[in-house]
Amino acid sequence: MEKLTVIKVGGKIVEDAQSLDGLLGGFANIPGGKVLVHGGGRSATKMAADLDIATTMIGGRRVTDEQMLKVVTMIYGGLVNKNIVAKLQARGVNALGLTGADMNVMLSHKREPVMVKAEVAGTPTDTLVDYGFVGDVERCDGQLLSMLLENGIVPVMAPLTHDGSGNMLNTNADTIAAETAKALAPFFDVTLVYCFEKAGVLMDENDDDSVIPQINEESFRNLVSEGVISGGMIPKIENALNACKAGVSKVVITKAECVGQNAGTVICL
Amino acid sequence: MEKLTVIKVGGKIVEDAQSLDGLLGGFANIPGGKVLVHGGGRSATKMAADLDIATTMIGGRRVTDEQMLKVVTMIYGGLVNKNIVAKLQARGVNALGLTGADMNVMLSHKREPVMVKAEVAGTPTDTLVDYGFVGDVERCDGQLLSMLLENGIVPVMAPLTHDGSGNMLNTNADTIAAETAKALAPFFDVTLVYCFEKAGVLMDENDDDSVIPQINEESFRNLVSEGVISGGMIPKIENALNACKAGVSKVVITKAECVGQNAGTVICL
Repeated sequence: MEKLTVIKVGGKIVEDAQSLDGLLGGFANIPGGKVLVHGGGRSATKMAADLDIATTMIGGRRVTDEQMLKVVTMIYGGLVNKNIVAKLQARGVNALGLTGADMNVMLSHKREPVMVKAEVAGTPTDTLVDYGFVGDVERCDGQLLSMLLENGIVPVMAPLTHDGSGNMLNTNADTIAAETAKALAPFFDVTLVYCFEKAGVLMDENDDDSVIPQINEESFRNLVSEGVISGGMIPKIENALNACKAGVSKVVITKAECVGQNAGTVICL
Repeated sequence: MEKLTVIKVGGKIVEDAQSLDGLLGGFANIPGGKVLVHGGGRSATKMAADLDIATTMIGGRRVTDEQMLKVVTMIYGGLVNKNIVAKLQARGVNALGLTGADMNVMLSHKREPVMVKAEVAGTPTDTLVDYGFVGDVERCDGQLLSMLLENGIVPVMAPLTHDGSGNMLNTNADTIAAETAKALAPFFDVTLVYCFEKAGVLMDENDDDSVIPQINEESFRNLVSEGVISGGMIPKIENALNACKAGVSKVVITKAECVGQNAGTVICL
């Protein structure tokens, strides 16, 4: 099976011209089919502030009312996405910017209000949170993406989907990357790469040289029980293992600077 | 040859929810292949004002400095384009939002400073104007668009191109529509429709019922010499006739409300 790499990069990397340039250089050099999934949250927050629109984050997730939906649609789908597409074209990569609405590539439904635990919400008690125009992915059209990839096209995916009823929906970029990788797994040998601020999953969080080279289900359980892996890294690795169970060959957690190199932590079954 | 309709709508139609809804209803009902090209200038001007960015128009054209380029990229490529794409998907139209950078579909070069006549610029003397990040189209990839159309995909094109060196360029939507229609002429029997505030080209500009049903090269020359057609309508019809010379079957000037109907002025050789 042909190799395919799905890379997810967060807002911090894509919003700084120099780090973006480094990332795109590494990305352009990856052989075989590839997909780039980007964030852009910092730019959205800054734009919202410039427009006197308040940003509310609960448990690290953005509450997206109608005004904020306009901001993320223009920042993620317009400014950040098209900037990346133009820069990849300049490097000879035939990029195509996509939201989930384009060719109906990723359909979502608007998230119902959810109970958020007190410690996550930062509230005295558990709280019912309406995240607004936020999408939970229903399906990703792997066949269509596969057809594009076979034609040498490189999808650049913004963290936006649609509900099929005419509304765009703000959608977590990690989820977009995982759903894309899973949908492409029947067609390609897929590696899903999450770019991270650290060099990988660390044995000692204060030592960047202590990257754990490989984690599987068994070693994950051990590392959690030993307290080496804790907090927000637990759901990240759980999601990575779930992607592997859904057919993704491996998930890599690495630094954006190391994209295109053999570095970071490899997670597989 | 299969029929194809390229429709250009200006900002006024696409920025108002009700008129956009009417347009998209008419557009969805057009049989055969179709392409929608949209503007968005009013939204860009409003967003620029909200961000304290001054808008400078010279001869009806926007001067696009670095800040304004960000505004048009996010408004045209993000907010307006994705809103249309999501709403077309809701109507069962498999829309794909595109700028010229996406799949390198339309390449431009940045316009050199140009001499603008005093009466156009509204200045005491002729003036050398640097329009900034504005693109003059070099080529449109008709083969790629044709391949998409053959697969049932409906391109929705924002008035943005790129220079191949990593920069997006603000590009006149009328030009995008004409270049798209011309590039598709070898593959389809192309009708290019310009939506306009009036019902068509009028014999009497104060009488909406005086639409001239058909104009060709000869009748155009006569109507100009008689003073029936004057001002900004002259270059519009010249461009339409040029599109016909380049292979477009006919150009229609009509009201947005009449899209999908046999109405307006038909321009052909």
